[in-house]
This record gives sequence, C-alpha cells and structure tokens, in this order.
Amino acid sequence: MFMFEKPLGMRDTLPSLYNTKKQVRERMTDAIGKWGFQFIETPTLEFYDTVGVQSAISEGKLFKLLDQQGHTLVLRPDMTAPIARVAASRFYQDDYPLRLAYDANVFRAQQREGGRPAEFEQIGTELIGDATTSGDAEVIALMIAVLKEAGLRNFKVAIGHIGFADALFKEILGNQERADVLRRFLYEKNYVGYREHVKALPLSSIDKGRLLQLLQLRGGEDKLALASELASSKEAKEAAAELEKLWLHLKDFGAAEYVKLDLNIVSHMSYYTGILFEVYAGNIGFPVGSGGRYNKLFERFNTPAPATGFGIRLDRLIESLGEEDKQPDIHCILYSGERRAEAITQAANLRGQGKRVTMQDITGVNDVDSYTKQFTDVSYFIGSRKGEQDE
Amino acid sequence: MFMFEKPLGMRDTLPSLYNTKKQVRERMTDAIGKWGFQFIETPTLEFYDTVGVQSAISEGKLFKLLDQQGHTLVLRPDMTAPIARVAASRFYQDDYPLRLAYDANVFRAQQREGGRPAEFEQIGTELIGDATTSGDAEVIALMIAVLKEAGLRNFKVAIGHIGFADALFKEILGNQERADVLRRFLYEKNYVGYREHVKALPLSSIDKGRLLQLLQLRGGEDKLALASELASSKEAKEAAAELEKLWLHLKDFGAAEYVKLDLNIVSHMSYYTGILFEVYAGNIGFPVGSGGRYNKLFERFNTPAPATGFGIRLDRLIESLGEEDKQPDIHCILYSGERRAEAITQAANLRGQGKRVTMQDITGVNDVDSYTKQFTDVSYFIGSRKGEQDE
Repeated sequence: MFMFEKPLGMRDTLPSLYNTKKQVRERMTDAIGKWGFQFIETPTLEFYDTVGVQSAISEGKLFKLLDQQGHTLVLRPDMTAPIARVAASRFYQDDYPLRLAYDANVFRAQQREGGRPAEFEQIGTELIGDATTSGDAEVIALMIAVLKEAGLRNFKVAIGHIGFADALFKEILGNQERADVLRRFLYEKNYVGYREHVKALPLSSIDKGRLLQLLQLRGGEDKLALASELASSKEAKEAAAELEKLWLHLKDFGAAEYVKLDLNIVSHMSYYTGILFEVYAGNIGFPVGSGGRYNKLFERFNTPAPATGFGIRLDRLIESLGEEDKQPDIHCILYSGERRAEAITQAANLRGQGKRVTMQDITGVNDVDSYTKQFTDVSYFIGSRKGEQDE
Repeated sequence: MFMFEKPLGMRDTLPSLYNTKKQVRERMTDAIGKWGFQFIETPTLEFYDTVGVQSAISEGKLFKLLDQQGHTLVLRPDMTAPIARVAASRFYQDDYPLRLAYDANVFRAQQREGGRPAEFEQIGTELIGDATTSGDAEVIALMIAVLKEAGLRNFKVAIGHIGFADALFKEILGNQERADVLRRFLYEKNYVGYREHVKALPLSSIDKGRLLQLLQLRGGEDKLALASELASSKEAKEAAAELEKLWLHLKDFGAAEYVKLDLNIVSHMSYYTGILFEVYAGNIGFPVGSGGRYNKLFERFNTPAPATGFGIRLDRLIESLGEEDKQPDIHCILYSGERRAEAITQAANLRGQGKRVTMQDITGVNDVDSYTKQFTDVSYFIGSRKGEQDE
C-alpha cells in the first residue's frame, strides 16, 4: 500500500478550506446559540445495540468494530440517536422541552472510489418534548436563519408531511407492499416511474387520478388547498391541516419566501413521523440539510417524548456557498541568530496588534525565495544591526 | 444491554463543560494562529499500514476495524503520523519549514471501567523541515504562550533530551537490553527501582555513580553544568550543548520561568530523536501536554525531514484550570398562540442585541414552574394583550 493513501471516502482538509469551514461553522453555531439551543458532544463510538440499531442509516453504511470486551461498536452514523440517548439519560423530563444542538462528524461507509465522503460534519439541533406545530415552525425558521447567517442566499426548504402520502396510499392501495413500491419511486424522485407504475395498477380511474394528483402537490402555498381537497381519510386531512398551520407560523417568522410545499418528500430516515423537510441550494444535487419530526424514537430509550430537529451538512453548504477558500495574511520575520531577541520582540508586538506572524531562523530554510513567497510580507532581522529591512 | 450505556472510556460532554471547552479551545487556537501555524484536518479513520504502524501508540491501544475492501483501518491514535502523511503528500519541500496545527479527537482503547478516556481532544502543532534549536525553542515557547492564553498559571515544562541518557547507557552498559531495563524505570518514574537496579549491576563504583548521578539532572538551569560534566561521549556532550543553547533561546522568549531541566524524561513516544518535554500543572498526575523532536518519522513517508511539535490534552488542561463550568445566560419568552407574532418580534430584537433567547409555546410545556426555572429571566406573551409581564 502506498504510504499516502487514505481509506475510501476519507478526506484531508487543507488550511484554506479549513479556514472557510471555521468561519461558516462559527456563524452557524452562534446563530443556534442565540436561539437558546445548547451544544453537547457525544462519543464517536457507540454500542451497536443502543445507538447503532436506532439510527436510521442502513446496515451496509455502518462502520462496525469489536471492542476488547467483545461488544460490537459503531462509528456514529448520525447524531439524532446519540442525542436521544443523552437526553433520555441525563436530562429531566420536567424541564422539557429541551433544546440541544451539535456540531459533529458522522460516518457512512462508501462502496466506491470517487463517491460520497465517508466522514462529514453535521451541524444541527433537536427540540425534544414539544409536540406543537410551533416546535416544527421554530426548527425550520431556525434552520433558515442559520443558513442565511452562513451566507447562503438562493435556497428553498421543501416541506412535506410523511403522514399525507402514507394515508393516501393506505386508503387507495390497501396493503403496505404496494405502498412501499410507490414510496420508493418518490424516495428516488423517479416521477416518470411513479406515473407509469400507477397507470398499470388495477385501480379505478378515479383512484389512479388521485395517486397521480399527489405529484402535483409540489410548489407554492396555493398547493395547500389542493392537498386539503385530495385528502379524504382522517390522517391525510390532519396532515394537510398541520401543514396549513405551519405555513401561518412560518409567515410570522418572516420565513415564507424560503419555503415551498412538497408532499412527495419521502426521506430514507425511517424514524420521521410528521412534518419533514429538505433544503436545496444552488446546483448541488443533494440536500444541504434536512430534518423533521420523529415522535417515536425516544420510546426506544425508555422515555417517550415527541421531537423535531434539523441537520445541515457543512461540506455541501460550503460547496453551495461557492466561496473562495480563505488564505489568511501571514507576516514572516526571517532572522539570524544574533538578532533573535529583536525578532522575538517584533513578533510579539505584531501579534499584540492582532497580526499573524511566523518567526523563522534563516538557517532552518532550504530555499529562501520559495519560502518567503508564501507570506503577505517579510521582515528581515539578519546580520548587522543597521536596521530592519522591509521587503 | 441497557439503552443508556456507552463503550468503555467513552464520555458525553454536557452543555456547561461544552462551553468551557469551547472558550479554552478558542483562546488556544487563536494563539497558535497568531504564531503563523495553519490548521488542517485529517480523517478519523486511517489505514493501519500507513498511519497505524507509524504511530507511537502500542498495538493494544489501537481501535481497529476492517473496511468493506478488507483493509485494516485504525481510529487515529495520535495526530503526528496523519500530519506527516499530509505534509509529505500535499506540501512542497521547497516551501519548508512548514508550520501546521490541529485540533482533533484521538482514540486509545482502554482495558477497564473508570479508567482513562478512550477518546480525547488534542490541540497541537508540528514544525516540519527545520532542524535548528530555534525550531525547538519556538515550539516550546509557543506551547507556553498557548497555556498562558488558556488561563493556566502554575505549570512547568520539564525539558530533556532523549540522546543524553541513551548515550550514557550505551557508554556504560554496552548493550541495548540492559539500557532498556533502565529506560523502563525512568519511563515509569520509578527512581527507587532505578537506584536499586543500578546498585546491583556488575559495574565499577565510578560507573554506578555516574548512572546514579543521572537522577540528579532534574531541576533548574544550574543542572546544565552538571550534565556537561557527566557527559563524556560525543553524543552526550552534543545533547548537553543543545540543551544549553535551547535555554538561551527560551530566555530570549521570556519563557525561562516556566521551564526546568529533566534529563530523566523518557517518553513512550518511540519516535522522538532529540529534545523532548512534558508539561505538568496543578495536581494532575499526568502531563497536560508533551512533545519533542522527531527527525526520523518523515523518512517513512518517503520525504525525509526533521520535525518538532507539541500536543496539549484539552481534558487535562481544563481539569488543571479548575474553572467552573460555564452556564450561559438564556432569556426565555413563553408565549401563547395569539401572541406568537409579538413573541417572535421580541425574540428577534433581543437576539439582535446579542442575547440568547429561547422562544417557547406554552402549550408545549409539561411543567411551567420546572421549565422556567432553567432560565436567567422569563418574559410572558400570554393571553390578552394588556402588555408584557416580566417576572
């Protein structure tokens, strides 16, 4: 194996990208803090039997290992299950609703070279113990505020409700297997396939028409009325009513211009139970962020509680920001031994003024021309003390 | 398995400690940036065959796993080898010396409950391509500046040289096996054991005396003269001379009050080749930080280069700072539906003033008394609009 290789999907972050990430990350976490969410940290490794099986990530994407006691561990594939573990074990339910946040790397094993990253940074929040639509609205409004704070301009949050299509499918198709085929088409955003499949189903033309109408429920606020019309079961009506209420809340938050309706959203995240959403920005083919309500996960940690949250992928956000990588200005002081003390004093002065200053003994440099080219400016403290020569 | 359990040595960081860590980390990374070091990030997982075998951490402490292609991966046990991989593969040697920095979690498997953490955060630097004593002095002076910036007051950097004891042992004991026995006593800081072992060796009383005198070479600057006297081989003399030169540099940096000599330091880090050091603070039984020169590691990445660096353990530093965990002030706005818009406006105003504000729909709260107790202050936007009632 060549000494420079890295495992599949693993990446290095060099200084200029590091600086860009750091700046964007700080703006995001500051905004989250301003909304009263508190950050926590959880371990990279968790037990497969606790967090691993509760995560909504498929088995094949889990990095697993055995510890020295013979337990199976996983590298956390997402942060929602670990935060549920901490919330359930370390916080009092009397104090709910609980607003927690994270900034963490998560891990998903990849199958092929040149594909998606196997480790990436997610910044997100979880609002735990609040079943109200106000909670859903707050989480979406916060996500929008965070994206704006990060510098993102052109983006849309597509908002759906997992209960709507589920209720429609149940009502028309009767069995789960048939429903799952259609869900898969939606999950893959393969609307042509969905249409053809619906046309071939042994259903009345009215029912086929209703299934096809579902595809129309993507767009502006006006689609909400269409959704209400299409809903006939109690569950579908409730889902539509919840979305209408959410829309009013988002208007109050001044967030309406960033949202659109999409009742075709089907997330791979199997734990969503209500409103769910995805953020799309610029030309990035994958969502920059996503989230939704998951009211069943906490039961598995022995403390039932409703919850909703979002997660933003920092790598995709940076890509869609399209910002230039930032190389900071660094001043160099090149010195020779006899003037070391002077060089130290000058470096301390400049650093005291907030500047970034590299001190370098000239005898440690191979190629002075090539070396000094990297800096914004260079001061020389070399040889006789006739005074500092600035270049 | 109980749903709340975590793997051995894995810890959660709750909000108050999270905030303390964040503040200390920022002060440290700012200081490192000011000295012209540039931060990079490397993956959590590396190939065992590249980084794993080059790390100075013992096999039993490595977390290993197999990827889907059948390669053995490790969770990085330290950052020095990953940074060497990146430096050797992504930076030009003409631009050396290179100043890189990191802030990363590293992983060391633990054997027993209640023991050391298996995952912890390290903040450090590597100065690559500079063989001068100026480089060693800079790294030590920077580490001292970083610790002071973090708020640490009572600490000492014990500085030694791996070449000194090695040369003395080689000269007096002749073979490596005998030398290793004495090195182990020093590594364990078992000076009683060292003394007894030396007394029992089949050596002249002069040689025994010299081996025992090594134990005296711990203390202030005055011990440097003793070291020069004790050294008779070329290697030992060179090591002593290097330390004397280093001391002059550290005086120029104004760092002398924080350092002491310790020619008994033997690090477990097998790759050190020259000056090495450990930081001790307060009552913490383990070093808060450590580092040294490692001039051989880069050969293994096909690009020979001298290097020196330090790493500080954030968990131990925070422990020795003994600071109170910081709970930020959070203002709560509790509202009912009809006054949501008002609540949103008020929250936005307060956040605009830099305050942290939680908005909470009262219908989402189980126990208002218990809930509101968590906040610095609470505003109520509830019921009729007779005006805001502050508590």
